[in-house]
Amino acid sequence: MKQVAIGIDIGGTNTIFGIVDKNGDFISRGSIKTETHPDHTIFMSTLCEAVKKMINESEAGFEVVGIGVGAPNGNYYNGTIEFAPNLNFKGVVPVVDFIKGKFDFEVVVLTNDANAAAMGEMIYGGAKGMRDFIMITLGTGVGSGIVVNGEMVYGHDGFAGELGHVIAVPEGRKCGCGRKGCLETYTSANGIKRTVFELLANTIEHSELRNISYNELSSKMIDEAAKRGDIIAKEAFDYTGKILGEKLADAIAHTSPEAIFLFGGLAQAGNVIFEPTKRYMENSLLNIYKNKVKLLPSELPPGDAAILGASALVWSEEENIQHL
Amino acid sequence: MKQVAIGIDIGGTNTIFGIVDKNGDFISRGSIKTETHPDHTIFMSTLCEAVKKMINESEAGFEVVGIGVGAPNGNYYNGTIEFAPNLNFKGVVPVVDFIKGKFDFEVVVLTNDANAAAMGEMIYGGAKGMRDFIMITLGTGVGSGIVVNGEMVYGHDGFAGELGHVIAVPEGRKCGCGRKGCLETYTSANGIKRTVFELLANTIEHSELRNISYNELSSKMIDEAAKRGDIIAKEAFDYTGKILGEKLADAIAHTSPEAIFLFGGLAQAGNVIFEPTKRYMENSLLNIYKNKVKLLPSELPPGDAAILGASALVWSEEENIQHL
Repeated sequence: MKQVAIGIDIGGTNTIFGIVDKNGDFISRGSIKTETHPDHTIFMSTLCEAVKKMINESEAGFEVVGIGVGAPNGNYYNGTIEFAPNLNFKGVVPVVDFIKGKFDFEVVVLTNDANAAAMGEMIYGGAKGMRDFIMITLGTGVGSGIVVNGEMVYGHDGFAGELGHVIAVPEGRKCGCGRKGCLETYTSANGIKRTVFELLANTIEHSELRNISYNELSSKMIDEAAKRGDIIAKEAFDYTGKILGEKLADAIAHTSPEAIFLFGGLAQAGNVIFEPTKRYMENSLLNIYKNKVKLLPSELPPGDAAILGASALVWSEEENIQHL
Repeated sequence: MKQVAIGIDIGGTNTIFGIVDKNGDFISRGSIKTETHPDHTIFMSTLCEAVKKMINESEAGFEVVGIGVGAPNGNYYNGTIEFAPNLNFKGVVPVVDFIKGKFDFEVVVLTNDANAAAMGEMIYGGAKGMRDFIMITLGTGVGSGIVVNGEMVYGHDGFAGELGHVIAVPEGRKCGCGRKGCLETYTSANGIKRTVFELLANTIEHSELRNISYNELSSKMIDEAAKRGDIIAKEAFDYTGKILGEKLADAIAHTSPEAIFLFGGLAQAGNVIFEPTKRYMENSLLNIYKNKVKLLPSELPPGDAAILGASALVWSEEENIQHL
C-alpha cells in the first residue's frame, strides 16, 4: 500500500495541512483559521477533527505513516509550541501529545517552521542527497534550519538554528526580540523596508519609493522598483545582500555547508538579491571556504513548502526509527 | 588484552606523541622536532620510526587500536595537512596514507588540533556524555571544535568550526588570514596584547604594562598584572570577554550547545576571563538561550591535551566503525 505523510503548518493567521506521498505529490489538502482560536485546546480539537475529515474523505488505498507539524517556536524534543509571539495562544502548547491522543500513528513530530522547510528541501527539494546545508527563510522574519551529517541540528534544547538573531550590526536596529542589530532587522521583508527608509532619509536620489508610506510599502514593491532601475531600490537590495552575505560567511565558518538555500519572499526577487549576497559572501569568506559553497534558491514550491516541510519530518523520523 | 591508542600532535616546533589507554592514562611518550624537517617525506619517516620505537620499548601487554593525529589545517576527510601556514612543509601532506603504509592498524585518523581537543574533552574530559557542545581554544590563535548530536562537525569539506575567523569587529584589526576583525585578533594570546596596547594608547591610566615592549609582553604577564589590580590589564580582560562573549552568543544561535569549554593559555587565567565572558555572553543571548548554556574550563591537563585529543580520535572512530 502506498505510504503517505500528513504535514501540518501552523501559522499566525491560518493553519494548512495536506496528505503527501514520498515524491512530494499532494493527495489532499485542507485548512482552518488559527487566529479565531485564542484557546489552544479548542484549536487543537478543531485541527484534529479537520485532519480526520480530510483523511476520511480522501480516496482509500494509502497508509498514513505519521503526522509532521511545523510551527513558530516549535520544540522538537518536547513536541510543544513554546511562547510563540505570533500566535494567539500563550504559554506552552503540547501539540504532539494532543495529536497522539487523537490518532494512532507511529510517528508524530513537530519542529519550528524553518527547520521544517530545511527538512522539506532535503527530502523533496534541492538538498536531496546533501549531508551538510543551511536553509535560510527570508520572510516577515528570518529563520534558518541547519543540517549537519545528514541530521537536523536541534541543539541540546531543541532551539538551535536561530540565524535571524545573530548580531549583524552591533548596536544596530531595534529588533522584536528586544535586542539590537539582529540579522532579521536587515534581511527580512520588513528589514529591506527599513533599509529603503534609511536610504530615503540619507540620500537625495530621486526614487519612485518616495511616494509610498512605510505601511504601504512591501518588499515586492521594492523588488519591482529595482527591476525598473530605481536607484534606491537597487541600493536597498545591495545593502541587504551585503549584510546577509557577511553573516552567511560567518555561518559557513561554523558548519561549512555544501550549500545555502534561500527561501521566502525576498529570495523570490531572484538575481537582484542573489547576486549581491553571493558577491559579499565570497568577499567575506576565509580563504579555505572560497568558491566552494553554493548559494541556491529553494526548489520547494512557495505555496506548498510549509506543508511539504512538515510532512518531510515524518519520513526523516521514520528513517531514524528504522535505524535504531 | 588492554586496548590503547596512539595520539600524535604535530606542532610548528615539536611533534609529540604518546600511548594512551581508554581512561586517558599515559603508558609511554615521545617527541621529535618538526621545524628541522622542511621535507615532509623525511619528517613523516622520522615520525613513524620514532613511534615504532616507542611501541617496541613499551612493556608488552596491550593492543594498539590505532593512531590519531592532530595537526594545524588537518583535514579529516582527506587525511591530509593542507597548506598549514605555521608548518615548514608546504602544500598537501598525505599524513594518513603515509602512516597506513608503515603500520597495520585498523584506525588511522587525522583532524585539526582544535577538533582533536574537542574530541579529547568528549572522551576524557568535562564533555563526557554531552551530545552538543563547543570547544574554544584560546592560544596563539583561536580554534574551535563543534560537536552536534554526539558527532564532530566536519562540514562538507572537513574544514568546519573555524570560529577564530568569524568577524568580531567589522573593519577591525588586521588578521593573519588576510581579512579584518576576526575573533582571533581580539581573543587570542596575541589579541589581548593588541588590546593592551590599544588601551595604553587611548587612556592615561597608570599601568605597570607601560614598561614592557610589545615583543616582551605575554598574556601571562597581563594575567598577573590584572591579578595585582592593574587597571589596564583588568580592562583588557574585560574587553576580551566582551568580544568573546558576544561571538559565543552568536555561536549558540547556530548549534545551541549544552556547554562551551574554554581551553588554552587565556582560559587558564580563570575568573578574570570567565567572569566577563559569561556576563557579556548572557547579556547578548536571545531570550530562549539565556541561563542555559554552561561556560566551563576544559578539564584536560594543558600539557597532555594535544596528545589526549589526538588519541581520542581513535576511540571515536572505532565506535563509528562498530556502528556501521
